[in-house]
Amino acid sequence: MNKVELRDRFFNRYKGLIRTEMIPYQWKVLNDEIDITIERERNDDSIPNEKSHVIENFRIAAGRKKGNHYGWVFQDSDLYKWLEAAAYTLREKMDEELKCLADDVVDLISEAQEENGYLDTYFTIEEPDQKYKRLWESHELYCAGHFIEAAVAYYEAVGNQKVLKTACKLADHIDSVFGDEDGKIHGYDGHEEVEIGLMRLYRLTQNERYLKLARYFLFVRGTDCDAMNSKHLPLAYYQAHLPVLEQDTAEGHAVRLVYLCTAMADAACETGDEKLLSACRRLWKSIVNRRMYITGGIGSTVSGEAFTLDYDLPNDTMYCETCASVGLVFFAYRMLMTEEKGEYGDVMERVLYNTVLGGVALDGKHFFYVNPLEVVPGKSSKDPLKSHVKCVRPQWLGCACCPPNLARLLASVEQYVFVQKKNKLFVNLFVECKGSFEIEDGILEIELKTGYPWDGCVEIKLNYSGTASVCLGIRVPSWSDTFDAEINHESTAFETKDGFIYINQVFKEDTIHLKLDMGAKRWYAHPMVENDLGKFAVTRGPFVYCLEEADNGKNLHLLSVEKQEPFEYEFEETLLGGVGIITASGWKAEADQEEEGLYRKSDSAVKKVKTKIKWIPYYSWANRGENEMRVWVREDNLC
Amino acid sequence: MNKVELRDRFFNRYKGLIRTEMIPYQWKVLNDEIDITIERERNDDSIPNEKSHVIENFRIAAGRKKGNHYGWVFQDSDLYKWLEAAAYTLREKMDEELKCLADDVVDLISEAQEENGYLDTYFTIEEPDQKYKRLWESHELYCAGHFIEAAVAYYEAVGNQKVLKTACKLADHIDSVFGDEDGKIHGYDGHEEVEIGLMRLYRLTQNERYLKLARYFLFVRGTDCDAMNSKHLPLAYYQAHLPVLEQDTAEGHAVRLVYLCTAMADAACETGDEKLLSACRRLWKSIVNRRMYITGGIGSTVSGEAFTLDYDLPNDTMYCETCASVGLVFFAYRMLMTEEKGEYGDVMERVLYNTVLGGVALDGKHFFYVNPLEVVPGKSSKDPLKSHVKCVRPQWLGCACCPPNLARLLASVEQYVFVQKKNKLFVNLFVECKGSFEIEDGILEIELKTGYPWDGCVEIKLNYSGTASVCLGIRVPSWSDTFDAEINHESTAFETKDGFIYINQVFKEDTIHLKLDMGAKRWYAHPMVENDLGKFAVTRGPFVYCLEEADNGKNLHLLSVEKQEPFEYEFEETLLGGVGIITASGWKAEADQEEEGLYRKSDSAVKKVKTKIKWIPYYSWANRGENEMRVWVREDNLC
Repeated sequence: MNKVELRDRFFNRYKGLIRTEMIPYQWKVLNDEIDITIERERNDDSIPNEKSHVIENFRIAAGRKKGNHYGWVFQDSDLYKWLEAAAYTLREKMDEELKCLADDVVDLISEAQEENGYLDTYFTIEEPDQKYKRLWESHELYCAGHFIEAAVAYYEAVGNQKVLKTACKLADHIDSVFGDEDGKIHGYDGHEEVEIGLMRLYRLTQNERYLKLARYFLFVRGTDCDAMNSKHLPLAYYQAHLPVLEQDTAEGHAVRLVYLCTAMADAACETGDEKLLSACRRLWKSIVNRRMYITGGIGSTVSGEAFTLDYDLPNDTMYCETCASVGLVFFAYRMLMTEEKGEYGDVMERVLYNTVLGGVALDGKHFFYVNPLEVVPGKSSKDPLKSHVKCVRPQWLGCACCPPNLARLLASVEQYVFVQKKNKLFVNLFVECKGSFEIEDGILEIELKTGYPWDGCVEIKLNYSGTASVCLGIRVPSWSDTFDAEINHESTAFETKDGFIYINQVFKEDTIHLKLDMGAKRWYAHPMVENDLGKFAVTRGPFVYCLEEADNGKNLHLLSVEKQEPFEYEFEETLLGGVGIITASGWKAEADQEEEGLYRKSDSAVKKVKTKIKWIPYYSWANRGENEMRVWVREDNLC
Repeated sequence: MNKVELRDRFFNRYKGLIRTEMIPYQWKVLNDEIDITIERERNDDSIPNEKSHVIENFRIAAGRKKGNHYGWVFQDSDLYKWLEAAAYTLREKMDEELKCLADDVVDLISEAQEENGYLDTYFTIEEPDQKYKRLWESHELYCAGHFIEAAVAYYEAVGNQKVLKTACKLADHIDSVFGDEDGKIHGYDGHEEVEIGLMRLYRLTQNERYLKLARYFLFVRGTDCDAMNSKHLPLAYYQAHLPVLEQDTAEGHAVRLVYLCTAMADAACETGDEKLLSACRRLWKSIVNRRMYITGGIGSTVSGEAFTLDYDLPNDTMYCETCASVGLVFFAYRMLMTEEKGEYGDVMERVLYNTVLGGVALDGKHFFYVNPLEVVPGKSSKDPLKSHVKCVRPQWLGCACCPPNLARLLASVEQYVFVQKKNKLFVNLFVECKGSFEIEDGILEIELKTGYPWDGCVEIKLNYSGTASVCLGIRVPSWSDTFDAEINHESTAFETKDGFIYINQVFKEDTIHLKLDMGAKRWYAHPMVENDLGKFAVTRGPFVYCLEEADNGKNLHLLSVEKQEPFEYEFEETLLGGVGIITASGWKAEADQEEEGLYRKSDSAVKKVKTKIKWIPYYSWANRGENEMRVWVREDNLC
């Protein structure tokens, strides 16, 4: 059994928060045991939530209690994601109390499951005759997918047989209802996810029916069938405007699109389907080359939480949902499994260290749904077009998809470090960990030691018990202009290709040292990104940086930096839990010039003063109360 | 009787269009006699209109026909504004056919009026027991105000007694229902307008009750009374959050705010109420110094069609409703009547020549509701946050307030040229016209000859039959860096104050020549206007200029101009009905650089090519099909 153990200081802090804060806290929320402020993510009277009621819905569906369903129709998935996060936490370190809770949850879920395998508390309780009749909005298969993912994770973590049995019963039920065959429903869920669950269940059980069913759902999408008989939203919102093989651009609801892509890449990886892989590549390019923020955020508009069009990346009205970033990590990792290209790891790292981590407060108890690149508190409160953009992370969200999604990703972050393909092993992320992999006739033990993400030195210790030649690929991030690599303290001309360096040999006890370029860097956007023209962003290592009012005063848009100005870097142990900060000398235009009028004939009157500008990593913003923030900073060209 | 006759080539083209196109066309629309495409101003299913039905509503209310009311609750005002425009057109030049139509309209309206004076087709037909019970949304007094305005105008134009009688009957009825007294309704309309109508009726009739009633409606606003018992919208939307004397900033629905201000200035002017005048000055400053676009547009957000906050002036999501600009002209003119400050005329001119004229196509048959400063057609169609921003003027609008509002302003544009105050006469606009004014013991005939707005030479011929000293004030626009002025071909050291030059003498036959600085000018926004930072706008004379794709190709945001680059001006007789165009040498960044990635480490790779850039006057945009447009252009600082 391949296994990876995380030993990373940076991520273990988050794992600790998940174990001690997020999982217990979310448990209480799901049980309505905690007095929380549920923030509505929009000023929308149609949003019902004032408590969670998730566990209560299961109790009612299970017949343990009487009552009505309350909350969103897709809310069951909150519990499933919680279970999945708990599974990863237990896999890492057993905790009998948590296992007890999770086992009880499994019992409850299996009791809520109907005789024939159907599982969805809303329809079981409220509208049993409407099952599978409103696929575009019912989220029944979406929830099923989340349960199956959680079940696989929990089974793998603690060997609970009931959860696997319940998941298979559900999958078998779905398989009996949906499909090409006459008499079955020809349709698919408006929100992709079941396909991911089925692929995981297939990988665990090797039951071909689950692969076939996942492929059915993928390929029926966008064809003329009885799924989308709603005219409420454009078909592209559900990625239902075209068959997936004909989709060239990332369209519609961003979370849905990346979940679809994840499942497509999964299936392409398992089946070697070249057409499907080509579609994945095209959608990847559409996202990454034309529709992704520098933070890794996706979804340019709140309306439909959706992609808009190429290079349309407004920094203050966008959506950039945390869940969409979580999904993009999934997609990137599946592409890494499919193709040996460092680019996928580059994006995975960008998303993980910036929008994903930015989705949770340093205390592990407050969460962003929307991840802006520019915030002015007054505008969010006054301009209804920006009312979805919060300036501080709320405690819990009316639509609570993001917090447990984040938790399940961060609780399993070590899964994303390596990819093994037969005798090849790829290192994608630089986190301290120890892994062991069965490769050919031996076990390869691999240990990463590093001060990453703040320091760029990575030591990789290898110990191989076999006699076969193993190909080790190590990603060199594209942001690293230069790198040094040594094996056993000797420089070698490593083979490099597509963002990886390769060492192909019979390993014994070997040590590789990699040193990345950790200079702070300026980035410019493609000139078609109008909002970023004339501006730059700063990164260092995997982190995108931003300015906050707490460090730089109000009116961040008045700041500018000359093109040649150098950056300084310093690690501040006491700031924001310890962050590396970047400073540079810049200018601040004076704002108090009303007497010169709103419009004036010469800008020579714009006085500016020299000022020191300070950047913090984007993930750490909004941890010091409500204040302005911005990622893109104006660049001065001096005359 | 003071009288002004327009002889201006530029505005007479519009007057001709109103007479030959807009009035007949709108008449057919109001009568459902024309097959039109009614554009919805938003993607909002709640908007009912698929035909106008305005006249039909009156026929039903008058008992001539059976049926139901159809359309917006405030739609009666469409007909009133049409009648007002027709009145101005008839005042200028009698047209028996049009007068017949208008007389018939008056008959119809008076038949639709109830016995007690009540007039509103919706409530008469549909909900007679709900009269005045939903003041925040019913628009009953708003419509009344428009009728009274139209009635005064029509009476003054053709002497129709019935229209005046109907208006007085309506005003008397309102006076009997609303007021401080016990037993009366203590309230006011959610949409200001009746106050303006009452002030006009007071000026015509000198009946103090109308002034008192107008003042009642002004001062009861924002006090605790039974008007605003709705919680649907924030009180500031209706300017009902504070008593008007305590309002310091322009808040809420922009049209409502400027209508309120117009009435406040009217009342302040008539009564010399200093507190009211101070409030007008504060609101004026709030608009003009902090919340107005360079085009004179107001209303920064579609949501509530409202003001947002100081210096928040996004160029592509704003509202800038045509009606709001029409209202701002009204407010500015009332302030000119109240105070001798050229600034009011400057703003009036800016609004009139840019957003107001921009509201109508050169053919007189297509209209903008929303007047953006930046448009990319793909974004308007793809991003729902910009769906209210049309790229070409629709034929008619689901909510048809703007076209007839524009018509009534342009049909009476000569009214805004002069202000007379006892022995003082002010020239505010430079349009060819001939006016005669009773001043002291004689008649002052004044004739303006000019090639304005393209040429800056103005000849003012005076002929005074009296013996008194007359003070003539001529506005020198603040955009004119220099000016030359002569009287009878002799230079004199004219007294200048607050934007006017003054000539104080006993005029006989005298001629004044004024030469304004018609150089093309660069304007910069206050640095707090984030969206305009690093950009400039071009004006020449009263016109703000813009770039269009038709002249400059796609991706206008890629264009930039160096700071010192000179402008060239040329009049193009065959372009857009004859416009002065401005050109300069600039740069265009190359957009086709996908291989370099969405984010890149150096911007030295941004190739740009020299290009000639061409500006057209803003009012003339969108007359060559759907294409990009932008007002603010990036300024290059060369290194």
